[in-house]
Amino acid sequence: MQYDLVVIGSGPGGYVGAIRASQLGLKVAIVERAELGGICLNWGCIPTKSLLKSASVFEYIQHAEDYGIKIEGESKADFEAMVARSRGVADGMSKGVQFLLKKNKVDVINGFGKLKDNKTVEVKKEDGSVIEVAAKHILLATGARSRELPNLPQDGVKVIGYRKALTLEKKPESMIVVGSGAIGSEFAYFYNSIGTKVTLVEYLPNIVPLEDEEVSKQLARSFKKAKINVMVSSEVLSVDTSGDKVKALIKTKKGEETHEADVILSAVGIAPNIEGIGLEEVGVVVENGKIKVDAYYKTSVDGVYAIGDIVPGQALAHVASAEAITCVEKIAGHTPEPINYSNIPGCTYTSPEVASVGLSEKAAKEAGYELKVGKFPFSASGKASAAGHKDGFVKLIFDAKYGELLGAHLVGANVTEMIAELVVAKRLETTGPELIKSVHPHPTMSEAIMEAAAAAYDEVIHI
Amino acid sequence: MQYDLVVIGSGPGGYVGAIRASQLGLKVAIVERAELGGICLNWGCIPTKSLLKSASVFEYIQHAEDYGIKIEGESKADFEAMVARSRGVADGMSKGVQFLLKKNKVDVINGFGKLKDNKTVEVKKEDGSVIEVAAKHILLATGARSRELPNLPQDGVKVIGYRKALTLEKKPESMIVVGSGAIGSEFAYFYNSIGTKVTLVEYLPNIVPLEDEEVSKQLARSFKKAKINVMVSSEVLSVDTSGDKVKALIKTKKGEETHEADVILSAVGIAPNIEGIGLEEVGVVVENGKIKVDAYYKTSVDGVYAIGDIVPGQALAHVASAEAITCVEKIAGHTPEPINYSNIPGCTYTSPEVASVGLSEKAAKEAGYELKVGKFPFSASGKASAAGHKDGFVKLIFDAKYGELLGAHLVGANVTEMIAELVVAKRLETTGPELIKSVHPHPTMSEAIMEAAAAAYDEVIHI
Repeated sequence: MQYDLVVIGSGPGGYVGAIRASQLGLKVAIVERAELGGICLNWGCIPTKSLLKSASVFEYIQHAEDYGIKIEGESKADFEAMVARSRGVADGMSKGVQFLLKKNKVDVINGFGKLKDNKTVEVKKEDGSVIEVAAKHILLATGARSRELPNLPQDGVKVIGYRKALTLEKKPESMIVVGSGAIGSEFAYFYNSIGTKVTLVEYLPNIVPLEDEEVSKQLARSFKKAKINVMVSSEVLSVDTSGDKVKALIKTKKGEETHEADVILSAVGIAPNIEGIGLEEVGVVVENGKIKVDAYYKTSVDGVYAIGDIVPGQALAHVASAEAITCVEKIAGHTPEPINYSNIPGCTYTSPEVASVGLSEKAAKEAGYELKVGKFPFSASGKASAAGHKDGFVKLIFDAKYGELLGAHLVGANVTEMIAELVVAKRLETTGPELIKSVHPHPTMSEAIMEAAAAAYDEVIHI
Repeated sequence: MQYDLVVIGSGPGGYVGAIRASQLGLKVAIVERAELGGICLNWGCIPTKSLLKSASVFEYIQHAEDYGIKIEGESKADFEAMVARSRGVADGMSKGVQFLLKKNKVDVINGFGKLKDNKTVEVKKEDGSVIEVAAKHILLATGARSRELPNLPQDGVKVIGYRKALTLEKKPESMIVVGSGAIGSEFAYFYNSIGTKVTLVEYLPNIVPLEDEEVSKQLARSFKKAKINVMVSSEVLSVDTSGDKVKALIKTKKGEETHEADVILSAVGIAPNIEGIGLEEVGVVVENGKIKVDAYYKTSVDGVYAIGDIVPGQALAHVASAEAITCVEKIAGHTPEPINYSNIPGCTYTSPEVASVGLSEKAAKEAGYELKVGKFPFSASGKASAAGHKDGFVKLIFDAKYGELLGAHLVGANVTEMIAELVVAKRLETTGPELIKSVHPHPTMSEAIMEAAAAAYDEVIHI
């Protein structure tokens, strides 16, 4: 069978690209070595959100009385049931992808795919047999895995990655989470909320270090209030797994400390899956550990494309999807706009949540802009008061000269749903004054966006 | 004391206008006969949202096991505690308004204000004394009250309005809610969720009759699933309050039925507060029960302005605020854009929530547009699955010719926070293709907006 497009990897990059390509009339196959939907659906975005929802409901239950509800007796987080729910949600989504691929007439080939040449994908099946699949175009979408540090080797038992953290057999009494990006912070919040004693270790001076500094500080405050032991400017030097528990030797500003826990979760970033997929053999150029591509994701080899975590750009599911769509639309002869990487939102689903798009205040200053910065705290929002979610704020950064929205930084309940407004606003080059005059519904948390814009222009009403 | 501006009424129109005017350098006083913040803060938007949040937490508790949480023993909605919380939230907000007015140097005058002439407001104080306040400009922002139908007179005991429904002494066992607009539907959902047997009576063929028909039908399905007795195309002919309970004679398509309940909530709309405020004496023109104003809220009398529920346009808090800001900016010599009433969002905070902006499909067709309509169900959203909120959908309506967004209709969890994106999109004249290519974060409910736009253009991925 000769395909127009063969996609290697069925994560949110691969399967979305395959479906879009099929919509555009291409004959498409997708090669997957494990579960359809990839890490995102099976071991990332989706099952974590399910656990985090359980944590959020558990939090409400612990504060039921604040909302006028009496609970007689104890309430208990049933860890196994939470994990089972999470696996169920992931499995349902994976089946959904199977359905979508079938509906869109994409052939699914199970096995490990690699480039043989720029027109052939070699697939090693589970039984060891190898087949060759001919393709006019080949899209590499092999994603990434948990990165391992030399001084923090994962044994899958006492030192684990995100994958194992989703399916532990029982709730650990204590956990050290190393790395406070989205993955580390989400697990720290989740396990802490169900009663695990959590220590969060970050090498840099702030947690969620990619966020605006004020956001990082707010999240750290909330984490500390929730009794997470937050250690910044700290580095795990070595681990000792010889005893019942695991010991980590941690270098802090004050000196070296030994911390003990049931388990260490290593969340120090991801490593692209670029090994063993034939890049060297076929001559696909790799730079700084990522595949080199043009604005439409063509690699250095004709007919071979790459998207997602294996190419430069934010390693996020929605980026992979957008790249895949852009790539296959171009292959199909359309003229899609290249992706604007400065307009990609990022979300962390802790409590409070974190969401941002564009430049941080520091980065905007360093880029030489003169700024108008506006901040509106949820403590001044009627809806936040009514909902009992007064932590956090919206911070908007405008270019003083033209009013252009340069960056948006939100921390608070539900802000991962609010950031989309700012993505659209940024895309349409909405100015501060235009945001101020967009009538937001009352009472909503989203009014804080309008108010933060007004604050930047000294027109804020509610502070 | 001679003021530049005297505002009568301190609701979300009045107090916001007063603060903005003061920011712009005007010397301002505000006249209020009751609580600062008006109906919205004290008897509307805010306290209802507090009760609805309690209901939502109670719902989570009843479904705790679905999220992997075990509760031993009973959980009970403590109605009095819910009401107390709601009053506390409202009081806090009212104190907040007091603080804001003080901070912005707005003088507060307690009493009933009316026009004496176009430069004088007469205020009748609680002790019966009358003072006169001189003003260059007078802004009427007196709001509205619950409308009474002749065959449904409110006695405040067995037939009540929204105000009493916020402070009942005990939870009624049964309630008939007449009128299924936002207020009626929200109370029907709230009382039903805490165990009151609720009948919702709507004169028109659909509940939330101002919404797109598909949204109305979805909400009706959800209400029926929650065991609310939904009666559409039905009319209360008369009530009998003579017995222990109250009886309503209801005309349905099938004939007349008598329904009995502890209490009837009349939620058949609002009546503007235009009586006794000196309109006739000063010659302010009233048309169809509302004060006639120009695009900047000037009435027929020089120096007298009116905004909010007493003028045409949607009777919503955020509309009143926007009108007040526009009005006082014009008075202060600025050149604000007139409000575009086709870009005003409306929200109903039931479960699922309802939010919309712009034209319904029917209205858009009637207006002669050729349409592209896209719908994306939350059942196909990963975030909705993870959160356990799969009911509802996003429906977007585009003009087929230019791709202009004409209307957005959302029903589902949290959509009242999602609608702001579409308000901004509509304001910036975002096209369908632009929405499709705005990278929404994964996994969020807001992705459904991008997917609904894609559905309209036959590019949807996940259905």
